[in-house]
Amino acid sequence: MANKIKVAVIGASGYAGLELVRLLVRHPGCELAALTSLEYPGRPFSQIFPALAGLVDLPFSQDPAPSMIGTAADVVFTAVPHQTAMGMIPAFLAQGCKVVDLSADFRFRDISVYEQWYQEHTAPELNAEAVYGLPELHRDEVRRTRLVGNPGCYPTGVILGLAPLAQAGLLVPDSVIADCKSGASGAGRQALLGISFCEVNDGFRAYKVLEHRHTPEMEQELSLLAGTPVNVTFTPHLVPMSRGILGTLYANLTEPRTEADLRELYAKFYQGHPFVRLRGPGSLPDTRDVRGANFCDLALRVDQRGRRVIVISAIDNLTKGAAGQAVQNFNLMMGLPETLGLETPPFLP
Amino acid sequence: MANKIKVAVIGASGYAGLELVRLLVRHPGCELAALTSLEYPGRPFSQIFPALAGLVDLPFSQDPAPSMIGTAADVVFTAVPHQTAMGMIPAFLAQGCKVVDLSADFRFRDISVYEQWYQEHTAPELNAEAVYGLPELHRDEVRRTRLVGNPGCYPTGVILGLAPLAQAGLLVPDSVIADCKSGASGAGRQALLGISFCEVNDGFRAYKVLEHRHTPEMEQELSLLAGTPVNVTFTPHLVPMSRGILGTLYANLTEPRTEADLRELYAKFYQGHPFVRLRGPGSLPDTRDVRGANFCDLALRVDQRGRRVIVISAIDNLTKGAAGQAVQNFNLMMGLPETLGLETPPFLP
Amino acid sequence: MANKIKVAVIGASGYAGLELVRLLVRHPGCELAALTSLEYPGRPFSQIFPALAGLVDLPFSQDPAPSMIGTAADVVFTAVPHQTAMGMIPAFLAQGCKVVDLSADFRFRDISVYEQWYQEHTAPELNAEAVYGLPELHRDEVRRTRLVGNPGCYPTGVILGLAPLAQAGLLVPDSVIADCKSGASGAGRQALLGISFCEVNDGFRAYKVLEHRHTPEMEQELSLLAGTPVNVTFTPHLVPMSRGILGTLYANLTEPRTEADLRELYAKFYQGHPFVRLRGPGSLPDTRDVRGANFCDLALRVDQRGRRVIVISAIDNLTKGAAGQAVQNFNLMMGLPETLGLETPPFLP
Amino acid sequence: MANKIKVAVIGASGYAGLELVRLLVRHPGCELAALTSLEYPGRPFSQIFPALAGLVDLPFSQDPAPSMIGTAADVVFTAVPHQTAMGMIPAFLAQGCKVVDLSADFRFRDISVYEQWYQEHTAPELNAEAVYGLPELHRDEVRRTRLVGNPGCYPTGVILGLAPLAQAGLLVPDSVIADCKSGASGAGRQALLGISFCEVNDGFRAYKVLEHRHTPEMEQELSLLAGTPVNVTFTPHLVPMSRGILGTLYANLTEPRTEADLRELYAKFYQGHPFVRLRGPGSLPDTRDVRGANFCDLALRVDQRGRRVIVISAIDNLTKGAAGQAVQNFNLMMGLPETLGLETPPFLP
Repeated sequence: MANKIKVAVIGASGYAGLELVRLLVRHPGCELAALTSLEYPGRPFSQIFPALAGLVDLPFSQDPAPSMIGTAADVVFTAVPHQTAMGMIPAFLAQGCKVVDLSADFRFRDISVYEQWYQEHTAPELNAEAVYGLPELHRDEVRRTRLVGNPGCYPTGVILGLAPLAQAGLLVPDSVIADCKSGASGAGRQALLGISFCEVNDGFRAYKVLEHRHTPEMEQELSLLAGTPVNVTFTPHLVPMSRGILGTLYANLTEPRTEADLRELYAKFYQGHPFVRLRGPGSLPDTRDVRGANFCDLALRVDQRGRRVIVISAIDNLTKGAAGQAVQNFNLMMGLPETLGLETPPFLP
Repeated sequence: MANKIKVAVIGASGYAGLELVRLLVRHPGCELAALTSLEYPGRPFSQIFPALAGLVDLPFSQDPAPSMIGTAADVVFTAVPHQTAMGMIPAFLAQGCKVVDLSADFRFRDISVYEQWYQEHTAPELNAEAVYGLPELHRDEVRRTRLVGNPGCYPTGVILGLAPLAQAGLLVPDSVIADCKSGASGAGRQALLGISFCEVNDGFRAYKVLEHRHTPEMEQELSLLAGTPVNVTFTPHLVPMSRGILGTLYANLTEPRTEADLRELYAKFYQGHPFVRLRGPGSLPDTRDVRGANFCDLALRVDQRGRRVIVISAIDNLTKGAAGQAVQNFNLMMGLPETLGLETPPFLP
Repeated sequence: MANKIKVAVIGASGYAGLELVRLLVRHPGCELAALTSLEYPGRPFSQIFPALAGLVDLPFSQDPAPSMIGTAADVVFTAVPHQTAMGMIPAFLAQGCKVVDLSADFRFRDISVYEQWYQEHTAPELNAEAVYGLPELHRDEVRRTRLVGNPGCYPTGVILGLAPLAQAGLLVPDSVIADCKSGASGAGRQALLGISFCEVNDGFRAYKVLEHRHTPEMEQELSLLAGTPVNVTFTPHLVPMSRGILGTLYANLTEPRTEADLRELYAKFYQGHPFVRLRGPGSLPDTRDVRGANFCDLALRVDQRGRRVIVISAIDNLTKGAAGQAVQNFNLMMGLPETLGLETPPFLP
Repeated sequence: MANKIKVAVIGASGYAGLELVRLLVRHPGCELAALTSLEYPGRPFSQIFPALAGLVDLPFSQDPAPSMIGTAADVVFTAVPHQTAMGMIPAFLAQGCKVVDLSADFRFRDISVYEQWYQEHTAPELNAEAVYGLPELHRDEVRRTRLVGNPGCYPTGVILGLAPLAQAGLLVPDSVIADCKSGASGAGRQALLGISFCEVNDGFRAYKVLEHRHTPEMEQELSLLAGTPVNVTFTPHLVPMSRGILGTLYANLTEPRTEADLRELYAKFYQGHPFVRLRGPGSLPDTRDVRGANFCDLALRVDQRGRRVIVISAIDNLTKGAAGQAVQNFNLMMGLPETLGLETPPFLP
């Protein structure tokens, strides 16, 4: 155990934090050094989550002060709300920790975009060095940074679904529509009437249409790839399931392409990226096929005589959309194999 | 409309209250005069429940004082927590209203039992005249009373399932086990972590084993029928579904009986009771078959050479287990046909 | 009972047929004269569907010959697969029955479109007189016809969602995207691995992308309204729920409009149509709010400085998307009030 | 890879077979040598189960003859229906393989019991050497055998729940009731109307009451432990979830005991058995807490002044109830650590 990297999870009683623990407890390169939770300080983790009895013996830290955590851990995962995250991360970094932040606080290159959609940024000097932790786009920067802004769940699926087109200059900039459907764990582990069982079961609805804060993240990365501003019409929906996001992405193409053309483009773009899988011809992604795994499954269809593309993208919002991607970033930051601790097959049926 | 009975629903924003509105809005013998909700005073009912837009035009009362409600309505349905109910019911009665109380406050003949399981009773003088509103057992008393204590959801299914055996002296008193499984609406329309979608979906658990407050209700009615104290070992469980209770009831018989014997006993007992249906031989109840309807479906099996019976009982916890039964009691109290407004078929699939 | 219209349901053991029975059994203007099912001839309906025990006493017809049915009934609802439907409908009409056909056989004005997506049409002479039974568009024709082609479930939601825009000339013809999500009952009451519980539960997937047979129906009606060919990029998805379709519809506008402009346009278009409800500002449809009811709930949002509209449309696929709409057509054909038998509130929670 | 044990999974396209693949693909001590499926011979495993694309490269065997498989593998897991299993297992054994049989064919000591509940036994000579593979009861025999009859899902939870009481002579033999609730995967990966999504979703029902073939397995093992015949009244139910079995077990005690007494008894009995977890006082099992893991979680309650016990037992029917237990048996048979390949935490939320 002596050589293992010591990690802390801040906010380990939320769903993203729990998923981090589920993954890290079996990760051969690290050791859980501290878990924190505002709600359960001092209580055994396995009392709150009896599923992990016998597997996680730590209690939630009695004293979750950043200085304490920063001393105990080499790497800190912050799975807390935005604003809270940037309040504590400077202290972790000052103590020499590396940080993977699952909040939105360090995802934006342009602080004014962040401030327009969220609130005032209190650590702008750190923002400049933060890396947007989508390894399929920024693997080398992730390897070199001490601070990763781990992407949002919806943006992960949407950006991976459209990146090859954006980079190839094939996207008509104002034509992009992201119609996304998420399981209820995306709303977090919370007592809210709107996500109580009877309000979600056997129903389906859109929410926050045109107002969701994940929009500017998608636009930032797609614009960067395209070299020109890309707007995204983004419609999130709630599915009566626990995990998973399916994105059905529509865009007009600047030049006609066949499905075969695009398959080749995608295959090339994602070569060497173990977590992106292109479905075979005739096959379509299902969120069940990536459940609990770090994969992003993609399929392509072409309509309107090659002028419109439909990309379908499936991830697990808690894994590739949050904790799994955070572990992938951790592996890269620490010089470990990118897939370490992330090899468990999807959970079926 | 002039001849219609004016009714008020107190607590119309909970699930039992909502079910009352769903049933009463189409009931040909009554008219909704007032709806109250502590959370939404003055707001349109259909703004909170857009499902009923165009069907219910009333707002939640701005002034929900009992005196106000009591003046506006001939009959009041109280769908509020115990203790709150007995705090307001005396005022309704004093104004000449009849009351169907869906709380536990007027369900117990013996106030000391109520006080042992709940708290001090603040209207003991009214308790004496209240009728336990299970019409299949107390139809005539219901017809004559002005105050019904509407049964709990679990007790409705359990008592109807065992009543013929209890009355026939066939139950071994300390052998009764009620293993019951309920949908999540039984927990009410609340913001609680434990009933949030991800904490219920794809799981199954028992809760409040041997501690559930519905136990003494079952024991009261079965003991009354048996003429001797009957104990019930009661285990409630939570099913990942919205509505329905299935009770699997076990008891030893004082004398051996065949399934055919018992079918005859039950058929006789429930003759003339339109809401109890005995499943045909070989057939078993499903909560889906009573969803949204006021039925209690029953099936019987005999084990151990006729010495043990298994009764399976299915109701919709919000309909026969709460609002539907309340309407059935309302019909009886007002001299209307027992099934009026309750003829809609179960909701399938 | 003498004056009630006698109706037959052909294919009453499928989900659409079952929904017809659920609605018709309480319809004050008609009487169930015959029910047929290829699988259960001669068996009591309530043995196959115990939910309806005591409510439907008919057996499935022993002899389901069209001549027999045609004699027994004034109106016939055919809820059988396409091709089968057009095989029997001529006989029903020849015996003087009116017919509401829930299959695709009489939905297309242009038989060549039908033949391209389905197969050879065997009753082309009848097709000419058939009316596409979307009463919000063709109410008067429905009133006068003896043969209604009842719309498909997806087209109902999509066409109602876009009709006002199409008629106003606001739709950019090649910009229309219909991203639709359906509950599993859309696949019918069948033994299929792909819709078994474990293959649907806790998952979400697209299917038949760009290949679904409901596409030409949408295009037919929108083109007719627009007076110019409208193409629809249609992507159906499967939601782990039993009932409901939510359509998220995207289109570019020929001229910029505000949300308020469009709300006014829709309000006018649907004035006098009791089953289309426009959600209030800030509110969004949920399939739960129309469950079991004949409503189509709509909401509007405007993006891209007024150049793109998002319409969200919710129906119950079995009710407004099939059996409810069939009853609405039946009412119109028989001169009954349009809403008769369809007033039951949505089923919540 | 040279030292890894070569394993074959016969019937790898059912849910138990799929779960075996999910577990074995990450098991450090073995290598998948062959997968068979009657339905998909010659097709890539990952084409049928795209979830495992990139993780399992094998096709389903083109030639699944026992002789072929027996040559390729050291250990064979048979996940096929009873009768089929005993038809092929003699050939595997003759070729020197060890066999873990997930069917019922080798679970019964007394062949006449098997023949009464199933059909004629065609390999009675092998039955004598087969070991009932519940390692918590028969670990040493499992270590020494070449043929394990892997227990049924329901019996695993019920026997583990009652074994300490049976062995201690505390069970009143004719008082045992096992009220069990299973997810739909227990019915297998099949196209059956009764387990289609809409027939299971939002419903709950009992099935095969007093007729389920798992009854004699429970009785065999509990009788053996008790040293006297124990009868079990067994009622299985179907829960609208994919995985998991919760057993609520009732028995009268021969002598009064407190909950603390019984906790001590259980703790002692299961000492050294890593997969049985006793929940802390006040805590109750949830199938979610064992999902995808090999645990059996237990809780105890005592009623009727110490004369009746309620044991609640949770397992994942596909893991501890089938494939996980098979891997546990495999580990023991091959001299590997009992938990190898089974350390992945339960899958939450």
